[in-house]
Amino acid sequence: MKHTKIGLVGLGTVGTGVARILLENRARISRACGQDVQLARIADVDITRERNLNLPEGILTTNYEEILNDPEISVVVQLIGGLDVERKIMLQMLEAGKNIVTANKALIATCGKEIFDTARKCKCSVAFEAAVGGGIPIIAAISESLAANEICSIEAILNGTCNFILSSMEKTGGDYSTTLSQAQKLGYAEANPAMDVEGKDATQKICILSQIAFGADLDWTHVSRQGVESVRGEDFQYAKSQGYTIRLIASAKRVLENSLEVCVGPCWVRQGTQLAEVDGAFNGVSVVGDAVGHLFFYGQGAGEMPTASAVVADIIDTICGRTAITFNTLNLWNDETCGKISFASPDNIKGEFYLRLVPKNAESQEEIIRILEENEVLVAVTLPNLAGGTVPENPAFAILTNETSEGTLCSVLNSLEQKNLLQQKPVKMRVLR
Amino acid sequence: MKHTKIGLVGLGTVGTGVARILLENRARISRACGQDVQLARIADVDITRERNLNLPEGILTTNYEEILNDPEISVVVQLIGGLDVERKIMLQMLEAGKNIVTANKALIATCGKEIFDTARKCKCSVAFEAAVGGGIPIIAAISESLAANEICSIEAILNGTCNFILSSMEKTGGDYSTTLSQAQKLGYAEANPAMDVEGKDATQKICILSQIAFGADLDWTHVSRQGVESVRGEDFQYAKSQGYTIRLIASAKRVLENSLEVCVGPCWVRQGTQLAEVDGAFNGVSVVGDAVGHLFFYGQGAGEMPTASAVVADIIDTICGRTAITFNTLNLWNDETCGKISFASPDNIKGEFYLRLVPKNAESQEEIIRILEENEVLVAVTLPNLAGGTVPENPAFAILTNETSEGTLCSVLNSLEQKNLLQQKPVKMRVLR
Repeated sequence: MKHTKIGLVGLGTVGTGVARILLENRARISRACGQDVQLARIADVDITRERNLNLPEGILTTNYEEILNDPEISVVVQLIGGLDVERKIMLQMLEAGKNIVTANKALIATCGKEIFDTARKCKCSVAFEAAVGGGIPIIAAISESLAANEICSIEAILNGTCNFILSSMEKTGGDYSTTLSQAQKLGYAEANPAMDVEGKDATQKICILSQIAFGADLDWTHVSRQGVESVRGEDFQYAKSQGYTIRLIASAKRVLENSLEVCVGPCWVRQGTQLAEVDGAFNGVSVVGDAVGHLFFYGQGAGEMPTASAVVADIIDTICGRTAITFNTLNLWNDETCGKISFASPDNIKGEFYLRLVPKNAESQEEIIRILEENEVLVAVTLPNLAGGTVPENPAFAILTNETSEGTLCSVLNSLEQKNLLQQKPVKMRVLR
Repeated sequence: MKHTKIGLVGLGTVGTGVARILLENRARISRACGQDVQLARIADVDITRERNLNLPEGILTTNYEEILNDPEISVVVQLIGGLDVERKIMLQMLEAGKNIVTANKALIATCGKEIFDTARKCKCSVAFEAAVGGGIPIIAAISESLAANEICSIEAILNGTCNFILSSMEKTGGDYSTTLSQAQKLGYAEANPAMDVEGKDATQKICILSQIAFGADLDWTHVSRQGVESVRGEDFQYAKSQGYTIRLIASAKRVLENSLEVCVGPCWVRQGTQLAEVDGAFNGVSVVGDAVGHLFFYGQGAGEMPTASAVVADIIDTICGRTAITFNTLNLWNDETCGKISFASPDNIKGEFYLRLVPKNAESQEEIIRILEENEVLVAVTLPNLAGGTVPENPAFAILTNETSEGTLCSVLNSLEQKNLLQQKPVKMRVLR
């Protein structure tokens, strides 16, 4: 019977989950692979920490080169996190002929082309189901199950931290900073939450999905991105009054033949819809394909075991041979498609928007509305002032616009700022239909 | 470049969708297959009907043997429906060395072992993603993406006709037969709706999922099954009064090591949960795995293009080689697992139930409740009589039980009937938690 040895680099939260599944269910995993599978070596900088895991004697090493240089190890699971070290090791592993399984969305979003080109050159594969949506098999779905479709759009909740914060604010009426502290206490937000709350994590993930769904090689740092730090209790009250709630939505949508609307930011989402019902740290992905219509996927987007479930699925696919096939036919980040699809111009991105504006003084409000209307940002509803929501020295008001373009709206908001009509940066959220 | 020829048997609704995708998107499908793919021949008994499809000259035949005997056709898509003819042709195709793609749930649920044994003998594969959940890639998810998990349970809405009827009754307050007629007029129910409304279709589908998730080879005709014909407007009113709605749920759950609780029937589902929010002819599947936790999948469970999306995904998987790998490692309906997992005894199936009972006369109600309580079917709530819901000559009453076993409940309900305390067969629905 064939036999495959696996090396694991990085024994953090997800790595521990992966080791647990491979060690405790070796017979089942081997059956799924059609051959005996052995977790042979684990490298981590810290090999003394207690992980509540029964590891075989001598499996741990602090030196990843023991995996790199072991010719019997053909599959390497890389779960270090971060960019530079993970990239360096991954390129070395590929050059040494190892097939890679990773959960590192930052690396794939940032160095996708380099890694995939190297893998192609070395006749290896790279699998990364766990990089987007944790335990939700969204990458397999888009790359394989929906292969008959042209994908029209993806709208997704891809960051559990932001969703935990927003759904807590929705329920408790708490403000952003109190809710963030509580999320940190409960382990749903990192001590340094910047990657999450600034929307960077969700942006990297939607860029990875855009490569698979549309062949778009996007620089994630160029995506129109807004975090959740500016969301206030008032915004939820306004949203609720119109039958909406607020979620951090990462979306990608084909606009013209070769251009893509990609945005990440807090959006108004109609209550009762599936995205609105995604609660706590869960993730949800809504996909529209030209044949299949609307599909929705929901599950835990992070955490030891859900993410490990996706990593081990990739390990199985790699060992039994499915990954090699998909890697070749899907041919991600290839020279032909890269650079062909670009960001849609803001003038081609249409939508309705919620705006919360704090005028310089009572007179400015009329002037602001006049300027909006003059510039074709038509005001559909001026939302009623909230009881207690505005204080005399900070008389915020909120409106919903009719359909306008992102480009028009941004230039009008800029001009309001330049004309010194606002006390604060305006808050703007797309309204999902 | 390699080249694969496909034969299609059955040009009905789904077959037309499949032909449309293959003919209109040949370049894209070929790219996904890593080789040129050609729909070479289509067999159907009716080759004159207008299908709004641009077919290549001479592609149609009324004789499926032209596909069977064409050595260049290596993949056959069988979309005839029904049992006997489809079975006969499929076995012939396998013996001739063709790989099969089918959407026929009745055939797979009824003759799974025979078909898979034949395919193994002939070194061919059988793919059937479209047999369950239409466009939702639930079979790929359970067989591949969740391969690291032991599946704990599946709770699903798998029949669009029943869900259309129930969600219409919920909204309009209409009765069953009016709603069924309306569903027939709109094309959501067949002229003879028995397979759907009696829950047979959903039962075949949950049995197929049980084979994949649990290795259970179940006789679908032995599953505890209830259709939607007995659901009345009153049941919705009672459910609503307690924060629930009603959906036809097909479920399979591991109870003990080698026994499975499999049920199909109308259930109380808490409002606001994902299954409750599945509306109209859509399908939804909730899966719990030991590592991944709770996942939910939603999409169109039927219809020309959504089902064709799943069929074409199978065609691509078959041609590029993924299906052969999965077919071998998954090894469905194999001799080792078949017969190992059986239905849980009703005494081991625990749950809470909604009961609507029509006592023989006013005095019987107290007697009924006394007998229920005596037999450990504890009454949690006696639901208030509905205004207009009961008429003097038909004084129905409804209760919610505490946790009891299916076995106990059935024997008590039988004894109530034997004691002649009921005017009608009791209506019983599980309450999902």
